[in-house]
Amino acid sequence: MNAASPIAALLEERRLVVDEALDRALSPDGAWPPTIHRAVRYSLFAGGKRIRPILVLLAGEAVGGERQDLLPFSCAVEMVHTYSLVHDDLPAMDNDDLRRGKPTSHKVFGEAIAILAGDALLTRAFHLLAEVPDGWNDVKLRRRITATALLGQACGTAGLIGGQVADLESEGKNVEPRDLARLHQAKTGALLAACVRGGGILGGAGAEELERLGRYGDAVGLAFQVVDDILDVTEEAAQLGKTAGKDVAARKATFVSLHGLDGARAAADALLEEALAALAPLGPRGETLAALAWHIVTRHA
Amino acid sequence: MNAASPIAALLEERRLVVDEALDRALSPDGAWPPTIHRAVRYSLFAGGKRIRPILVLLAGEAVGGERQDLLPFSCAVEMVHTYSLVHDDLPAMDNDDLRRGKPTSHKVFGEAIAILAGDALLTRAFHLLAEVPDGWNDVKLRRRITATALLGQACGTAGLIGGQVADLESEGKNVEPRDLARLHQAKTGALLAACVRGGGILGGAGAEELERLGRYGDAVGLAFQVVDDILDVTEEAAQLGKTAGKDVAARKATFVSLHGLDGARAAADALLEEALAALAPLGPRGETLAALAWHIVTRHA
Repeated sequence: MNAASPIAALLEERRLVVDEALDRALSPDGAWPPTIHRAVRYSLFAGGKRIRPILVLLAGEAVGGERQDLLPFSCAVEMVHTYSLVHDDLPAMDNDDLRRGKPTSHKVFGEAIAILAGDALLTRAFHLLAEVPDGWNDVKLRRRITATALLGQACGTAGLIGGQVADLESEGKNVEPRDLARLHQAKTGALLAACVRGGGILGGAGAEELERLGRYGDAVGLAFQVVDDILDVTEEAAQLGKTAGKDVAARKATFVSLHGLDGARAAADALLEEALAALAPLGPRGETLAALAWHIVTRHA
Repeated sequence: MNAASPIAALLEERRLVVDEALDRALSPDGAWPPTIHRAVRYSLFAGGKRIRPILVLLAGEAVGGERQDLLPFSCAVEMVHTYSLVHDDLPAMDNDDLRRGKPTSHKVFGEAIAILAGDALLTRAFHLLAEVPDGWNDVKLRRRITATALLGQACGTAGLIGGQVADLESEGKNVEPRDLARLHQAKTGALLAACVRGGGILGGAGAEELERLGRYGDAVGLAFQVVDDILDVTEEAAQLGKTAGKDVAARKATFVSLHGLDGARAAADALLEEALAALAPLGPRGETLAALAWHIVTRHA
């Protein structure tokens, strides 16, 4: 996929919309106390590809949702994702010095501020979702609160946090393939799937559409992690913007260590097929989501 | 105040109700992955006095609210409070070994799990507030979401998190009285005030009642911190359940260091008067809140 392709242009347009919305969702420059706002912006605007918020927008748009109803949730998932990176990089966790090609938050601001910046991003995500215009009726309120519950589930102990705990505890141990799939489903898949389902709910998806989006989200979520594992062994650090080969160094179980490079690639392809099959009944409305799935599986960083 | 007084019995009854609700709001024993649930329960059931959730209940009951509408918010504020303690105690922050008379989370579970347990408590707080019964109408949904926004504000960078940042940055520096008041308002006052206002909103308070509760909450919030500063110099560690005299040791500015012990006691008394005056027009319905304010200002731990 090159920069001139239609999906690349579409992703770039959505990325700019998300970046503007994120900027508006944060406190203005100079807000008290300045340090924490600098740290929050440093990590949130570190050059992320905004895959998660774009998934929200594309899923919502696929079922006829309006952008203004989707953007707060878009921002919230990116804040949650960024908080999880900031905390995962801490010395007590994965102890990473580099993220998206830049020094990690604790290297720049120190551990205390990095912990608090993560806390602030997580807090602002849910705060933003509770900021609701006065005129909203119960249908809109209900959609917002349902999507919020989905996000809470996805980033709690059954999702993001549980996955990170299991990941830390699996280092240097033999991990069964079933347990690895569960770990990745929690650590990466749950939030990606919540982006798709949440976007669908906020866009007003019917039960059948929501079920389709759910299957797409589950497949894309797992495919994303499989590709991450592949890239960890095939790409250079400069390309990834983070330390390459660190899974191997940490003796972490990955799809590649368990199934080999070819096995992992075959799994990613199968998951892509699954995602596309789930979208098929949506017809043309599913096309951008299909292109995004393809983009995720064939990405190089 | 002794254990046989009416307010003590009332607080004890509410404390048990809150503890039961907190227990129900958490994942069952043995949920995956076990470590994180042990760490969350360890800190949440470490013997807290539940002042914040009880403030929610009493404020909501004072305006005619029903307990079932108040309890989720009650649980959420206690989870948020507990997460802030777990993170504040970390080596990178206040580096405390003792909390509520027990070893702090990172001493028991290690730093990584302590960070994640704090994250899990914060996440579950907002997740819980987004779990809403199917039959709720827009009035109830609106109240829940308004109270949630209030909590988000109180524990964000303008509240809890900003206060902790300012606190860390003030160590060993000369702090102006005005800046100290702002720091405490953010770090302690904002959440306590949100308990009172949130309880009022969920209980269906009118505008006039809400304004009264707001003034009460602001005064009680600041009084709580003034008393904390007094107890830090007058009580033994065994009484406090945490390291005594640590503000002095850390050269932190406190109400006592700025205004002396007598000045701080006079400030606490004046704030108590302010809180009681705000409640006066509520008549008998404000009596339990008045008793709680009195209890907070005259407490010894």
